[in-house]
Amino acid sequence: MEILCLNGPNLNRLGKREPGIYGTETLRDVEERLAGLAAVHNSRVVFYQSNHEGLLIDRIHEAADGGTEGIIFNPGAYTHTSIALRDALASVALPAVEVHISNIHTREEFRHRSLIAPVCIGQIAGLGTQGYELALLALLRHGKGE
Amino acid sequence: MEILCLNGPNLNRLGKREPGIYGTETLRDVEERLAGLAAVHNSRVVFYQSNHEGLLIDRIHEAADGGTEGIIFNPGAYTHTSIALRDALASVALPAVEVHISNIHTREEFRHRSLIAPVCIGQIAGLGTQGYELALLALLRHGKGE
Amino acid sequence: MEILCLNGPNLNRLGKREPGIYGTETLRDVEERLAGLAAVHNSRVVFYQSNHEGLLIDRIHEAADGGTEGIIFNPGAYTHTSIALRDALASVALPAVEVHISNIHTREEFRHRSLIAPVCIGQIAGLGTQGYELALLALLRHGKGE
Amino acid sequence: MEILCLNGPNLNRLGKREPGIYGTETLRDVEERLAGLAAVHNSRVVFYQSNHEGLLIDRIHEAADGGTEGIIFNPGAYTHTSIALRDALASVALPAVEVHISNIHTREEFRHRSLIAPVCIGQIAGLGTQGYELALLALLRHGKGE
Amino acid sequence: MEILCLNGPNLNRLGKREPGIYGTETLRDVEERLAGLAAVHNSRVVFYQSNHEGLLIDRIHEAADGGTEGIIFNPGAYTHTSIALRDALASVALPAVEVHISNIHTREEFRHRSLIAPVCIGQIAGLGTQGYELALLALLRHGKGE
Amino acid sequence: MEILCLNGPNLNRLGKREPGIYGTETLRDVEERLAGLAAVHNSRVVFYQSNHEGLLIDRIHEAADGGTEGIIFNPGAYTHTSIALRDALASVALPAVEVHISNIHTREEFRHRSLIAPVCIGQIAGLGTQGYELALLALLRHGKGE
Amino acid sequence: MEILCLNGPNLNRLGKREPGIYGTETLRDVEERLAGLAAVHNSRVVFYQSNHEGLLIDRIHEAADGGTEGIIFNPGAYTHTSIALRDALASVALPAVEVHISNIHTREEFRHRSLIAPVCIGQIAGLGTQGYELALLALLRHGKGE
Amino acid sequence: MEILCLNGPNLNRLGKREPGIYGTETLRDVEERLAGLAAVHNSRVVFYQSNHEGLLIDRIHEAADGGTEGIIFNPGAYTHTSIALRDALASVALPAVEVHISNIHTREEFRHRSLIAPVCIGQIAGLGTQGYELALLALLRHGKGE
Amino acid sequence: MEILCLNGPNLNRLGKREPGIYGTETLRDVEERLAGLAAVHNSRVVFYQSNHEGLLIDRIHEAADGGTEGIIFNPGAYTHTSIALRDALASVALPAVEVHISNIHTREEFRHRSLIAPVCIGQIAGLGTQGYELALLALLRHGKGE
Amino acid sequence: MEILCLNGPNLNRLGKREPGIYGTETLRDVEERLAGLAAVHNSRVVFYQSNHEGLLIDRIHEAADGGTEGIIFNPGAYTHTSIALRDALASVALPAVEVHISNIHTREEFRHRSLIAPVCIGQIAGLGTQGYELALLALLRHGKGE
Amino acid sequence: MEILCLNGPNLNRLGKREPGIYGTETLRDVEERLAGLAAVHNSRVVFYQSNHEGLLIDRIHEAADGGTEGIIFNPGAYTHTSIALRDALASVALPAVEVHISNIHTREEFRHRSLIAPVCIGQIAGLGTQGYELALLALLRHGKGE
Amino acid sequence: MEILCLNGPNLNRLGKREPGIYGTETLRDVEERLAGLAAVHNSRVVFYQSNHEGLLIDRIHEAADGGTEGIIFNPGAYTHTSIALRDALASVALPAVEVHISNIHTREEFRHRSLIAPVCIGQIAGLGTQGYELALLALLRHGKGE
Repeated sequence: MEILCLNGPNLNRLGKREPGIYGTETLRDVEERLAGLAAVHNSRVVFYQSNHEGLLIDRIHEAADGGTEGIIFNPGAYTHTSIALRDALASVALPAVEVHISNIHTREEFRHRSLIAPVCIGQIAGLGTQGYELALLALLRHGKGE
Repeated sequence: MEILCLNGPNLNRLGKREPGIYGTETLRDVEERLAGLAAVHNSRVVFYQSNHEGLLIDRIHEAADGGTEGIIFNPGAYTHTSIALRDALASVALPAVEVHISNIHTREEFRHRSLIAPVCIGQIAGLGTQGYELALLALLRHGKGE
Repeated sequence: MEILCLNGPNLNRLGKREPGIYGTETLRDVEERLAGLAAVHNSRVVFYQSNHEGLLIDRIHEAADGGTEGIIFNPGAYTHTSIALRDALASVALPAVEVHISNIHTREEFRHRSLIAPVCIGQIAGLGTQGYELALLALLRHGKGE
Repeated sequence: MEILCLNGPNLNRLGKREPGIYGTETLRDVEERLAGLAAVHNSRVVFYQSNHEGLLIDRIHEAADGGTEGIIFNPGAYTHTSIALRDALASVALPAVEVHISNIHTREEFRHRSLIAPVCIGQIAGLGTQGYELALLALLRHGKGE
Repeated sequence: MEILCLNGPNLNRLGKREPGIYGTETLRDVEERLAGLAAVHNSRVVFYQSNHEGLLIDRIHEAADGGTEGIIFNPGAYTHTSIALRDALASVALPAVEVHISNIHTREEFRHRSLIAPVCIGQIAGLGTQGYELALLALLRHGKGE
Repeated sequence: MEILCLNGPNLNRLGKREPGIYGTETLRDVEERLAGLAAVHNSRVVFYQSNHEGLLIDRIHEAADGGTEGIIFNPGAYTHTSIALRDALASVALPAVEVHISNIHTREEFRHRSLIAPVCIGQIAGLGTQGYELALLALLRHGKGE
Repeated sequence: MEILCLNGPNLNRLGKREPGIYGTETLRDVEERLAGLAAVHNSRVVFYQSNHEGLLIDRIHEAADGGTEGIIFNPGAYTHTSIALRDALASVALPAVEVHISNIHTREEFRHRSLIAPVCIGQIAGLGTQGYELALLALLRHGKGE
Repeated sequence: MEILCLNGPNLNRLGKREPGIYGTETLRDVEERLAGLAAVHNSRVVFYQSNHEGLLIDRIHEAADGGTEGIIFNPGAYTHTSIALRDALASVALPAVEVHISNIHTREEFRHRSLIAPVCIGQIAGLGTQGYELALLALLRHGKGE
Repeated sequence: MEILCLNGPNLNRLGKREPGIYGTETLRDVEERLAGLAAVHNSRVVFYQSNHEGLLIDRIHEAADGGTEGIIFNPGAYTHTSIALRDALASVALPAVEVHISNIHTREEFRHRSLIAPVCIGQIAGLGTQGYELALLALLRHGKGE
Repeated sequence: MEILCLNGPNLNRLGKREPGIYGTETLRDVEERLAGLAAVHNSRVVFYQSNHEGLLIDRIHEAADGGTEGIIFNPGAYTHTSIALRDALASVALPAVEVHISNIHTREEFRHRSLIAPVCIGQIAGLGTQGYELALLALLRHGKGE
Repeated sequence: MEILCLNGPNLNRLGKREPGIYGTETLRDVEERLAGLAAVHNSRVVFYQSNHEGLLIDRIHEAADGGTEGIIFNPGAYTHTSIALRDALASVALPAVEVHISNIHTREEFRHRSLIAPVCIGQIAGLGTQGYELALLALLRHGKGE
Repeated sequence: MEILCLNGPNLNRLGKREPGIYGTETLRDVEERLAGLAAVHNSRVVFYQSNHEGLLIDRIHEAADGGTEGIIFNPGAYTHTSIALRDALASVALPAVEVHISNIHTREEFRHRSLIAPVCIGQIAGLGTQGYELALLALLRHGKGE
């Protein structure tokens, strides 16, 4: 089973950016741990990060045409502003889980609403980088029809 | 490690209530599976469900005075209306994870806002009853300081 | 045919409470008249009143498991605040009619919106305690498939 | 006792218009049944339907000057937009009951607010065409000072 | 100079309708007094009242094509709901003064906004039926270019 | 194929009314051009204009009972205020295209929302009186199942 | 009969300030014309203008204790922001008419609401400086109990 | 004179709960001090605390039937959500003073509005547990008709 | 200990102004009673009332530079509109208690929000002129570090 | 005459994406048909599609500097979120027609508002891919000064 | 060139008031530095500070009649509440630059909106007391027609 | 000292785009003047303009890793819509000044709110292209710890 792990704007700065909110791990660290977990479950995760809304849309389209069977998606700030990403996700028939490292509900009002969540199967927020792993577990089980 | 799994109003009807939204498992089924997972991790989950806001508050207070080290909390409809439960959770110094079986973001507008999430460490929504298990994993790792 | 007549908070004070708005009959008076009307139609009404949101939820669940075929429901102030009661009603497959003794549309703004009405078949407001009788007639005819 | 049964825009289409929402009876059917019920109670119902806000206002004024003792009023879509009809009703000293065939609370947001209800003694919604009969019963009893 | 005095819905009930708010004079009384005042100023007032939004629009159009040089307009409840009347007034190049007998600012919130006032030269509210006379004086002076 | 071209309030003033916004053509000019275009496509357009909301509703009902196969509808100001017209259109099973001569999106805020558009197949705004012709082309093609 | 003509902030600039909106007369010109009109009616107008909210409040209090029988009040920008002036006016038992030279309904949104009008008997807006004279006529007649 | 001192949800945690906001005294400490103060004034305070909205309503009803002459009420989080408690208080003819230990105006937006205050004679907020004593003094004096 | 008792606009009219809301005592009466209570506690109250927002700001600044140790502040209508007074209070490091004689929560919507309360230690409303005395007691105890 | 046909995010998925809403034609199909129609009118359409807001802005700028005489623009989801695209269009002096394939007024609330329409000459929505052709006809006639 | 530097409420407390937000310089310090900078540019700055809205309005009027050629204006809290100051500035034909020492966009929501900025040529916020100097430079260059 | 001058969407059109709002200088002109000013202060400005939100984010990240000591940022339309740019700026520890050439407060409502300003030290708006120079002066002084 192949899963796309998609990260949006500023997540390349993970570990450097406001560690009080996001912790000190880098995105690379997270990806490696996730790859390891996938291997244990005989699956594979491919990774993509971009600060460009358009490139993220392109990448989602591409996933629809390849062998991808699910998406772990942390849309970063685009969570709250991008109808285009929502439409991209809705246009491909793939199960997705939205992940947020920080608890968006304790932050600014404008971070409480997600435009993306309604086109995902679910959302995980505030559980740190572990959220990616929980999302992977959810997608794997989802893939087995459980 | 002892974890309290707390379920709010109407969750006793799980399996009977609107299966299109909530699935066919009963709450008992979910609890058994969760207990099994806890055992594997040398932990223990205690269960409590009530339709009474006041009893849920009482139970949270009680947890604060006992050996409980974390709370898995599905507040049901009280998620969106109960400041009293929020205050109860804030008044005890225990990490909590909010769980919703259905994806609240695809339902009525008034289910999108959680009064409880800001006093939890995180929130898991839409991943079915598996969400309880993911919440348990998150709390266990949280308990180890990871 | 068995109908549950369910009354919410403060309706036990009927006749004592603000008679300018609610009239001088007691809840017992209303119930007796309603029982009489039911008898005429070879039906039976069971009565329950509580100031506790949780007990009202419990009672609705219980109705779903017994022989109840319809609910006359005056949720009192919970009409405007309780998503939990709404969910309870939605979770049982019973026709319900919402009743308000006073005309909620001439009172405070926050009494104009009902969270319960969308999960009932209809609503009767402002027709005094006679509203319970009209609701009974509606449910009886509903029960006959008319 | 003479009652005016007043129907607003599009109710002439009853039975033809969106039967999923409004049923298959025609307005004529409803009126005949209502006339029969009135006869049983030694009363008389006069009927008027118009798609014209102005004609409905004229008819209400006329009622004030004749022998009319109560109004059963289904203002249709004007329920939500016509302050002029509200003022007309307020300007005549006649008890009125607002009737809606469908449950307006399960439909579009803009159908939840009634501009007319605050100048009626009560409102009946969602109980199908039977609502007219219940309104008649309420007005008859109201006329007897009960 | 010819002035059109245009009255909207329910103003035909003046003197009969809620005298606590609108006083006991009839519309006829007001019109006669206004005609007398106009005569003193070598002018003429023509009167029109209708409960029909469409007829009021028709009448405004007609004024544009005749010898009318100004409009005294009490749109009644249409003040707050009719964009069509606003457009009608905007479409004819005639100075208009909006008149309200009662002080709309002390009544319901929805009576505080006028859709008509922005296409009039001014508005007079709360000064009773005298408001029509003040409006006439204003239009007469406006007509002299003062 | 017979198409109804329906125009709402103040459109009879076309060419006279605020030419800066609406141009100098009269409604008659527009209708003649439209009739010519229909003839080319072996179709026929019948025309109706009224300033009366009620008459427009009556005319839509009539269309439902005659041979009309589609409606070109410029509801004028009723676009933004008339739920009754919306219901009338919804109650007849005819495809309709909403037309606005001016670009309603560059005008007052309250002209941005259309109550009618959700019950039409589409909307054309801002393209001048040519919009009627484009609407006709759209309905003709729609009629052919394209 | 003695009337207080009270003018608020920036009205001392009348004639100098934005003549496109307010005309070229000075406040002195307006006051003289108003004094003349009062003399004709055997009355007297006393004048006061201030840019200071506090001084306007003081002056209203003073009026309550002297021989003043009515107030013509143009509160300028304080119309929309001063609850203190509203309270001052409410605290003295004197009839007041609010006057605005320009048509506040064609200007910025925040000028559409008046905090003062609900404690006046009425409001005149948009009729230029003539509005003061109309207000005087209204107060004189009000004083005679007409 | 007998006064009921009623405390709502989480106030049993006083002294344990977020001492930065609520201080270190326990509810018992507060009650003892209050009882002492009452004794000095030849009065008596009875105490009741519950986390259950329904029990608080029951207790208010009970007060209406006993010898209670006033209520000191800290509704905790129910202040902002419970119309049922408001109705309970309105249904009994007893003077009540609302007390909040913390300054609710410096906390979250949703704590600024009180549903209870409009049915109390007054409100005291932010003065710590001393607020209960001030409320007692106010009720005692109120009882003497001062 | 020296306390400043500061009263805002229209409070000089106490006893004359709307006695139904504010009672018949004059401000002088209140001040004398308050001075007496202070004397009993070996303290002193200085009094200042103004209708001028600017003078109230000046007076608060002055207090910061003198021997004042606390402020009893009834900002009157400025409570709801003056950010400048809020800033003045915030700029001086003195404990303040906001007092309202009437229960602002039963009055107009715009009186429910206080801009001043968030920079005070607390607020007392609706307890009549006794509120000043309770505020004094609170400040005295606050001064003792209780 | 050269026209730019510009398509925004996800329109490259046309025919693959949610066919229930958007139909089964591909964007290529639409473009070919449009090119054919242009040829008939001795005009030329150049096509550009991108998922990147920035590239769409770049392309609009480029059009301003080339021979382009009009723009057919389907901004997709950027319709509702991109002020930058609005500014780009406003910065070039080219007539544009906004096109939406689906009827945006029957979809989510956030799709009802267009940020782009106010800087276009008009908007066509809900008429399927035929909308592009109607837009082309409108621009061609616009180009001829009709 | 003569520039008026106008400071609103509480700015006389600069250096004493909340130094964490406003720094430790006094207003005098700022004025001296600004006077020095003006001298370098052969200009002169006159200074005025008041806590009184009315005096600030008076001072702006006075500037209009004297030799003032520009205004540096820090309206303090009146920025967000005073339409009267906005009107005063609009009534004089002088270029003004609004200055805020702190970054108003990081403070309370109600400080984000400026009523004054729309009648200034520009606004400088958050750059400390240096903002006055930048405003001076901007006005000097503006005065030279650059 | 090295400063990054970052310009967002459509600013490459400066001088070509709506000169009534933005003036006739090109961005190159502005940059040259700014470079000259920097040279005078022994500093250096590097320039970057893009219409791509993603590239602007990338460039901010790059600045964080290079020798940049401050950012002059005109985010154009992204000011009002881009949380991603806000997060990018917040993630790098560099002082930034937001610049707008036009006075955004006199333009459309949606341009009044800046999502970027709260993560900058300050904002300059409406002072034309001179704003960039003032921002540079502010950053230079900020760099010296003044």
